[in-house]
Amino acid sequence: MYINISLFAFYSGSGAYMGITLQYNTNDNTVKVSEAESVTALHKGFFGYMQKGVITLTPEEALYLIDIRNARSYDENGNELKFNDLAEKFKIDKLIARYCTFKDWRDRGLIIRPIEEIKGSYGRSPVKQYPSGKFQIPKYAIQGLLFPEDLVTIIDDETAGKEIYENYWLGQFGTYKAEQRGKLSKLDVYETLLMIKHCNLTLRNATEEQMIKAAKEKRDDFLLMYDVYEDWRLRGYILKTGFKFGTHFRLYMPKASPTKKGDEWVHSKHVIQVFPRKSKLLISEWARAIRVAHSVKKTFILAIPGVKSKGKKVELDFLLYHRKKEGIENPKDDKPSLLMLSLSEEEYIGGAELADSIEEAKRIGLDLLLAIADRETSVTYYRVKRIELPGSKYEYYEIEWEQP
Amino acid sequence: MYINISLFAFYSGSGAYMGITLQYNTNDNTVKVSEAESVTALHKGFFGYMQKGVITLTPEEALYLIDIRNARSYDENGNELKFNDLAEKFKIDKLIARYCTFKDWRDRGLIIRPIEEIKGSYGRSPVKQYPSGKFQIPKYAIQGLLFPEDLVTIIDDETAGKEIYENYWLGQFGTYKAEQRGKLSKLDVYETLLMIKHCNLTLRNATEEQMIKAAKEKRDDFLLMYDVYEDWRLRGYILKTGFKFGTHFRLYMPKASPTKKGDEWVHSKHVIQVFPRKSKLLISEWARAIRVAHSVKKTFILAIPGVKSKGKKVELDFLLYHRKKEGIENPKDDKPSLLMLSLSEEEYIGGAELADSIEEAKRIGLDLLLAIADRETSVTYYRVKRIELPGSKYEYYEIEWEQP
Repeated sequence: MYINISLFAFYSGSGAYMGITLQYNTNDNTVKVSEAESVTALHKGFFGYMQKGVITLTPEEALYLIDIRNARSYDENGNELKFNDLAEKFKIDKLIARYCTFKDWRDRGLIIRPIEEIKGSYGRSPVKQYPSGKFQIPKYAIQGLLFPEDLVTIIDDETAGKEIYENYWLGQFGTYKAEQRGKLSKLDVYETLLMIKHCNLTLRNATEEQMIKAAKEKRDDFLLMYDVYEDWRLRGYILKTGFKFGTHFRLYMPKASPTKKGDEWVHSKHVIQVFPRKSKLLISEWARAIRVAHSVKKTFILAIPGVKSKGKKVELDFLLYHRKKEGIENPKDDKPSLLMLSLSEEEYIGGAELADSIEEAKRIGLDLLLAIADRETSVTYYRVKRIELPGSKYEYYEIEWEQP
Repeated sequence: MYINISLFAFYSGSGAYMGITLQYNTNDNTVKVSEAESVTALHKGFFGYMQKGVITLTPEEALYLIDIRNARSYDENGNELKFNDLAEKFKIDKLIARYCTFKDWRDRGLIIRPIEEIKGSYGRSPVKQYPSGKFQIPKYAIQGLLFPEDLVTIIDDETAGKEIYENYWLGQFGTYKAEQRGKLSKLDVYETLLMIKHCNLTLRNATEEQMIKAAKEKRDDFLLMYDVYEDWRLRGYILKTGFKFGTHFRLYMPKASPTKKGDEWVHSKHVIQVFPRKSKLLISEWARAIRVAHSVKKTFILAIPGVKSKGKKVELDFLLYHRKKEGIENPKDDKPSLLMLSLSEEEYIGGAELADSIEEAKRIGLDLLLAIADRETSVTYYRVKRIELPGSKYEYYEIEWEQP
C-alpha cells in the first residue's frame, strides 16, 4: 500500500513541487512518485526516470525533494520517513558529499543526472595545446659543489655561472632580481640533475647516483618531480621554483630570459604542481595549492607522474547539464556538458584516483568538474582541462576555479 | 705562514672592504683577518670577533666577504681557497640555508651575529592578549545521524537545527549564506563531538567512541584538531571551516552571529592552522598555508598541540639587529631584536621542532623570525608572536609575513 496524500507546503519558489509525496518501497529500496500532477512536474524538471506514469527517483533526488521542495516520504505502512530515516536506507558511500554537490547544482537552477545515463563519447573535451620549443644545451664542462643537506649546488666559477644563468636561466647568479649581489651561481636540485645529464656538469663531491640518493633522502618523490621538470625543460620551457606561489614550479614560455629588465620582463603565467600517482593528499591541502595560484592569477597546471597500474574501476558521480545561450541545457535537447566527481574537504584523494577519473572523463569526451563540499556544505568547483605538450609521455591538466 | 696581500676589487658599493685577505688556518679550522685596515673596517661593520688586533670570522661571514665583498682567502701555503673550497672545510649542517639567510640580512644593511652571543633574557617578546568569552551551552537533547564516510552529522529536526545554528552558530542550517535553502542542519565532525560532550547531542547510529573512531580513521590527528577547536570554542569563539582560506578553521570573536545581514555582518579576521607536534611538513607546504591567509588578509594563527617531550637541544641560527628610529641597531649600542631560524624550501620541519624553537625564543625574550631560503636563494620572513588565550593550556602563535 502506498500512502499518497498531498500535504502542506512551505516552499514558495515554485508551486509546481508543492506537497509531493514520495513512496518508499522496502522490497527494492526505491523511492517512487505516482500522483499524476507531481509526476508531470518532476518529469518536466528532469527528476528521476519515468516508466508507465510512475517516476523512480535517485536517492539524492528524493533527499533533495524532502530537504528543499517540502516533499514527504512514507513507507508501505504509512510511517513517515524523514531525511535521516530515508538516508539510512541507502547504502551509498559518501552520500552526503554526493548530496551536497547534487543540491548545489540543482540550487543553481541547473540539471544534474545519474552518471549511468552516459551514452557513448560526446567530444566536448577540447585539449589545450602548449607550444613546444627546444632546449638549448650549454656546451660547458662545469664543476660544482653539492651541499647535500641543502640540496643546492654551488658553482663558484663566476664566468661560467653567469653565462648559464643569463643564457639558459639555469641556476641563480647573485641574488634573485639583484644579480650583481654576489658572484656565485646556485643550482637547485632539479637544475643540478638536468645539468649532470645534459650539460656536462660534474660535482666535485658526488656522482650522479650519490646526488640522486641525497635528494631522495630529503624527498622520496624526487625522481618524479624531476621527470616533470625535465619533460618541460627539454621542450624549451623555463622552470624555476614556485615557492612564492605555493607550488613546486613556476613556468616561463620558451625563450624567456632573466636578463630582460623593466617593461621587457615577462612574468610567469603558469605554475606546476606535481601530484604523483602513488601519493595521497587531503582534499583541503590539494585545493590550497590551487587557491594560492588563483590568488596570484597564475594558471595552475597539475602533473600526475608515475606508472599507470590497473586500478579499480573509477566511479564518477554525476552527469551535468550547464547553461546555454538561451536558458539551460537539458537531457531532452542537449548533450551533457561536464562530469562531476563529488568530494568533501576532509577526505583524502590519491594521485592515481584523480588521474583515472580524468582518464575516464577523456574517454567519455567531457571535461571533469571536481566539486568539493566543505564542512559547511558550501561547494567549490574546479574544472579540469587536458593539456597536450607535444612529444611528452605525460598528460598535464589545467585546473581552473569555476563558478558555474 | 699567512699570505696577506690586497688584491683587485670589483665591488663598488663600499670601498672600505676592497681587497680584504682572509687567512684560513688548517689547525683550528678558522678564518682570520690581520691586516690593520681590513680589521678596522670589519670591526666597524660588526663582522667577527676581535682579539689582539686580529679578527676571527664565522664561516658565514668569511663566505659572505668572498661572495659579496671581493675578499680572497688563502691557506698557509698560499693556495687560494675559493668559495666552495672554503665551504667544504666547514662541517656545518644546512650551511647554505644559513648562508643565504645570513647574506639576505646583511644585504639589507642590517647586522647579524652568532647565536652564541646571547646574554640572558631581553624581554623583547611581547605576548598578544586575546579576550576570553564564555561558551553558551544550548540546553537541548538533540538527535542526529552520523555519516561516517562524510564525517557529517545531520539533524533533521528543523526547529532544533535552526535554533542551534542561529543562536550558537553550531552546524550549517540550510545553505551557507542562503539559510532558507533547505531545512536540515549539518554539523561537521568537530561540532559533532563538541555537542556530544557539552550539549546533550546523541547520534542514532553511533556512540561517542564510535564517532571518534570513524573520525580518526579519516584523519589520525582528529583528536588534536578537536582539542584546538574545543579550546577556543569553550572560550566563546566561533570556529567554522577555513577551507576557503586554505586553513583548518576560521575564527570569529565571541558573540559573532550568522544571522547578522548586510553591513551588520562581521567577517572573520583570523584563521587557525593546526600543526601537531608529532607531524612533519615540507617547509614549502607549511608556508603555503600562511600565503593563502595573507592573500585574504587574515591573521594566521598557528596551533601546535600534542604532548611535550624532551626533544634534542634546539639550535637557533642567528641573533638579529634590526632598524631603529635613526639608522640601524648594533651590538655596541643596542639589544638584539630577533632570533633567526634558518630554513630552506625543500626541508621538512616538525611541529615539535618548531614549538621548541619558539619556546627557546620565549626563554631568550625575543621574537622568532623564520627565514626561508627558496630554491633561488630568495628569502621570505615570517615573524612568530606568542598569543595568550586566558585559561588555555596551549600556546598559540600569530605568524606574520614580514619584510625586514
